[in-house]
Parts: sequence; C-alpha cells; structure tokens
Amino acid sequence: MRATVIQAPHDIRVEEVPDAALRNPGDAVVRVVRACICGSDLWAYRGESARKPGQRIGHEFLGVVEETGAEVTGLRPGDLVVAPFVWSDGVCTYCADGLTTSCVHGGFWGSIGEEGQSDGGQGEAVRVPFADTTLVKLPPEALSDDHLLTGLLALSDVFGTGHHAALGAGVRPGSTVAVVGDGAVGLCGVLAARRLGAERIIALGRHQDRTDIARTFGATDVVAARGEEAVAAVRELTGGQGAHAVIEAVGTEQSMRTAVGITRDGGAIGYVGVPHGSGTGLDLGEMFDRNIALRGGVAPVRTYIEELLPGILDGSTDPAPVFDHAVDLDGVPGGYRAMDERTALKVLVTF
Amino acid sequence: MRATVIQAPHDIRVEEVPDAALRNPGDAVVRVVRACICGSDLWAYRGESARKPGQRIGHEFLGVVEETGAEVTGLRPGDLVVAPFVWSDGVCTYCADGLTTSCVHGGFWGSIGEEGQSDGGQGEAVRVPFADTTLVKLPPEALSDDHLLTGLLALSDVFGTGHHAALGAGVRPGSTVAVVGDGAVGLCGVLAARRLGAERIIALGRHQDRTDIARTFGATDVVAARGEEAVAAVRELTGGQGAHAVIEAVGTEQSMRTAVGITRDGGAIGYVGVPHGSGTGLDLGEMFDRNIALRGGVAPVRTYIEELLPGILDGSTDPAPVFDHAVDLDGVPGGYRAMDERTALKVLVTF
Repeated sequence: MRATVIQAPHDIRVEEVPDAALRNPGDAVVRVVRACICGSDLWAYRGESARKPGQRIGHEFLGVVEETGAEVTGLRPGDLVVAPFVWSDGVCTYCADGLTTSCVHGGFWGSIGEEGQSDGGQGEAVRVPFADTTLVKLPPEALSDDHLLTGLLALSDVFGTGHHAALGAGVRPGSTVAVVGDGAVGLCGVLAARRLGAERIIALGRHQDRTDIARTFGATDVVAARGEEAVAAVRELTGGQGAHAVIEAVGTEQSMRTAVGITRDGGAIGYVGVPHGSGTGLDLGEMFDRNIALRGGVAPVRTYIEELLPGILDGSTDPAPVFDHAVDLDGVPGGYRAMDERTALKVLVTF
Repeated sequence: MRATVIQAPHDIRVEEVPDAALRNPGDAVVRVVRACICGSDLWAYRGESARKPGQRIGHEFLGVVEETGAEVTGLRPGDLVVAPFVWSDGVCTYCADGLTTSCVHGGFWGSIGEEGQSDGGQGEAVRVPFADTTLVKLPPEALSDDHLLTGLLALSDVFGTGHHAALGAGVRPGSTVAVVGDGAVGLCGVLAARRLGAERIIALGRHQDRTDIARTFGATDVVAARGEEAVAAVRELTGGQGAHAVIEAVGTEQSMRTAVGITRDGGAIGYVGVPHGSGTGLDLGEMFDRNIALRGGVAPVRTYIEELLPGILDGSTDPAPVFDHAVDLDGVPGGYRAMDERTALKVLVTF
C-alpha cells in the first residue's frame, strides 16, 4: 500500500510500504477515507521533533473497517469508524480514569514501539490495535456526506484537543474565555468553549481569515496583537481583570507568557500546545500570587468522542471549517509545505 | 507599643513603635494574644525577600478586640478573634469568589502600602482594616485553653495553607496523596489531606521529629529521601504510578521537580511553597505528556476559616503540634534564629 513517510526534515514522501495487516486477535485493519495534517506534524517536519528516516507519519484518520481479528466483537467489516490519535486498551487503570493517552498498552500512530513501526494515519490503511476500545463507530450514512465526514474527522484530534483545553481552563456556562492561538486547535478551543456555555470568548490572532472562523465558532471579541500588547488589550476588554478561563493552543514560551498575563486571579490556563523551547514561559511567582492554575496536556480524545459526536451529527457544533485545504495522498507533501508556510490552516487528505 | 521589626537580613529586633490605633471607621484594634513565625518570614530574614530597614514583620495572630470603628457592626471590644494573613474587604469581585488574597483593597500585615506602614502580627497590637470581613470570632472560652488557642492560631495561615494545597492537589475521599516538605505547612497538608478523606498519605521528609508529627497527623508512609531517590521510593510505594494528589510545600526548584516526578498521570500538584530560585523546576514537556495539573498559590485562608474551625474546636483536627517552640515577644529574635537553624519547626509567640 502507499503511505506518507518522513525521510528527513522538510522531506515528506508518499511511498510504497508493507500492507496494513492483522497481527493480534484484537486488531482491525481500517481502510482510510479521510486523514489530515496536524500542527504537531510540523514539529517533525521542521526537525524540532526527532523522527527516524523513513518513519511513518500522520495520526488523524477515519475510515472503513476492512478486516477484524478473532477477538474483535464490536466491529465488522464495512463499519465506518473514527480513530483517536492514540490507541488504548480500554481496561488499564488510566483508561478506567478516562486518561487513554496514558494507557499502559497505548501508542501513537506512526510510532516505532515494541512491535516495530506502526501504521501512520496519512496512508491507505492502518492496523488498529485494541480495535474494540480504540475505534468509535460512526453512522454509515456519513460516508456519503462530504462536509459531515470532514467534521467527524476532527474527533480524531483537533476538536477533542480543543475540548480538553476548554475543560482544563475550567470553562463553564457564563465564563469569560480567552484563546491564545488562531491555529486549528485554538479555533476548536473557541468552538468547544461556546459548546460548554461560555458567555464571552476573546480570540487572540493576527490572521483575519482565521479570526473570521473564530467568530463563526463563537468568538465575541478578537484581539489582533501579541505579547504585552495582547495582554493589555484583553485586560481592557475584561475590566482590568483578565479571563477566568484561558486556552493556550500554541506551545511556545511567548504564548504561555501571554496566557499567564491574561488570566484572571483564581483562573486557569488549559494548555494543549505541545511545549517547545528551552523555557516554560511560566512566571511561577506571578501564578502563585494570583492563584493561576495550569491544567492540560496531550488530550485523551478517545474519552471525549461519545460526548462530542452528537453535536457534530446534528450540526450544532461543526468543526469542519478548520479544514481549509484538501489534497489527495499524492498531495500530502505539498500539504505540509502549505501548512509550514501558513498558506493553509489545516489540510484534509482524501482518498 | 512594642513590636517586631526587621532592620536588615538576620537582624530582627523588638522595638517601641507607634500604638495601633483606629484610622478608618471599618477598623478594629486587636490586642495580640498569640502570634507566630512563618517559614515565609525566613525569606525576609535571609535577605531573599526585600524589606525596608525597620519594616514591621509577622502576619499570623489571634487576639482580643480592644476598640472598633464607627462602622464595625459584627465585633465588640472583648471578642476573641483570629486574623487571616491578608485583610480583605469582603465585597469585591475576588472576595465574592472566595479569593480574598486578591482583594482589591487587601493587604498583608507588616506591608507598606498607600496608608503607610501597617502593623505586623508579631507585636502587641494590630490595626485591622475591614475588621468585620477580615476577622473571625472565636469562642471566648478558648482564651483559657492554651492548647486550643495554639491550634486556633493555625487558622491564621499554616493550616489554611495546608488545606489550600490539599484542595489544589484535588484530594478526595480515597485519594493517595504525597506531601513534599516536612515543614509546618507540609505537616498541615498531611492533616488537611486526612481531613478530606485521603486513604493513603506519603510524607516526604528527612527529620524524624517532623515525620513523627506527620504520622500523628495521618501520614501512612514516610519517605526519608530527596530528589531522584524520593521519586523512586514514592513510585515503588504506588505500584509505579505515583500519587494522584501531590502537595508541594517548599517552593524550591528541586521540590517542584520532585513533585512532578511523584505525580500520577492525570494527577495534580497543589503548591503553596512560595516560589524561590531562578527556574520553576517544572518540566512542562513531562507535565504535558502525563497531564499533570498545577494549582495553588497564596492561600485565601479567610475563606477556609469557617470550614476548618469546627474540627479544631471539637479536637478532630488538631494542628497545634506544629508549634514546637514558644517564646515571648522579647524572644522573637531568638525564635527566628531557631527556625533558621532548623532547631525549631514553628515558633509560637505568647503575650
């Protein structure tokens, strides 16, 4: 089959690789129908996260079950399913807590673990371990609804990650929320905050095409500034206090510093931007004096799919607009370039 | 009147100062009956927190109301009261949220603010702004019960701060808790965790006289190690996972690093150690991967007094044993030395 590999920084290729195939009785093989490129894939693309030459890449996909192992009971060939970006056994102590990303038997698509190279999401098919607990069935009729299918793909990572940030930030009905980062995760944070009942949502971003999406997602205010200037603007909008719930969806020192600066005393930062850089950007003295909490991390999106799915199916929360560019499998290398150069927000891959 | 001042690092004196006197109609003057020395006073003593020469010091006290301003309605001369370490107006947006430490009209005893030098707690009397909302009445019969009076003094800071840490760490009935720091705050964290229903409490500390108190406060395990060794020991005690709720009561980079290392994936660190040092000790990448939350800061102990008071009155939670050394006002400079040299855990000041 054909799948995306990363040979070196800035060298993404689509190559012939071994067919996805059952290995364990709990596995399923899923033929990929939709995949996409994540902002976190760019860290590998830019050489800031190490990858082996030729390693598979991509961790977001939905598709149709092609084959199931002997122990798979909840899925059948032909089922339309979405995969969270981590597989999980569903029974360990962490899975029992809903923290599927810490599953003792879990792993990331495209990673190289005890069983060797796992399939990546940006390829024709994927072997899915623990298929019964990892995959979530979708209504089969979605297969014929392009827009819906795109929205459902967001359950694989980006929308669940925005939801995780909103929960970490403590968004509640009536909250004032600020969102640092106008990438796809930040925008999904806006959407998740609105879904959780936020009254006011301040989106920080300097790309109007993105903040326009933020507004359709529920942002009530836009701050087109960074750093100190952004902090001053958010404080001005909030009577000098800042936002009780702040979503940090970038992962740089500067974005974290901004997040601290715009959080109201006693509030929380929900952070889902993968941390990069040598420092944390956290002024612990300021956080201490003002009782600012920090809560977040890699999102256990598997746990959120059942909760988020109905709103996508009924159209009340539609994350599809974060995908502003579509390619086929051969177009994936160009998709990385487009995201790296910021000419695309998030690239959809169709098969 | 006589009160404690800090002339320079390591130079604590008891001097004649202006009498505490009403200034605003909401003030009360409290004659101090019990005060104490806080671990955070030592940062000033050691020159690590700046103070003006001759500045007043001490922020924990209880006493008897001597005089009240015209607008004070809830207190009368003769009332026994305890003061939280911050005064607060009780009506601002932060006080309404229970975050009295962020009160827009609040301040710390001994600080120098818009109204000049405020009285410190380690003196004969204190002018208390916003007396109705700052002070909490205690049963008058406590005045004749030395041990009870000592326990009640802990409501002024140390026990409420331990409680804040336990809440920040998310201690619940059945929790496994680990406590970094065997100072008075850490010990009160143990006591607070037991009060909140923790099933297992691992106290980290290398001073047996202190960990003995931890055991009487509810610690089920003691780890007499630091750093990597402590992390390994706590992990061994918790099936390799760490504690869901970790109380950080030191404030150094190393203690924070230890706290991160012993927190279970998905758990939280409740931190109340005043942050010191150039770095945070936080490995944000590890916290991200393992979804470790950080929540805490300066404790709004005023908000906790009503909740914590009954347990002290009925003897079910008795923080008095953290005071292992007593002095009179003239003995305060020696009390600082004893705490600095770690020959005293926490010094009580009687009048």
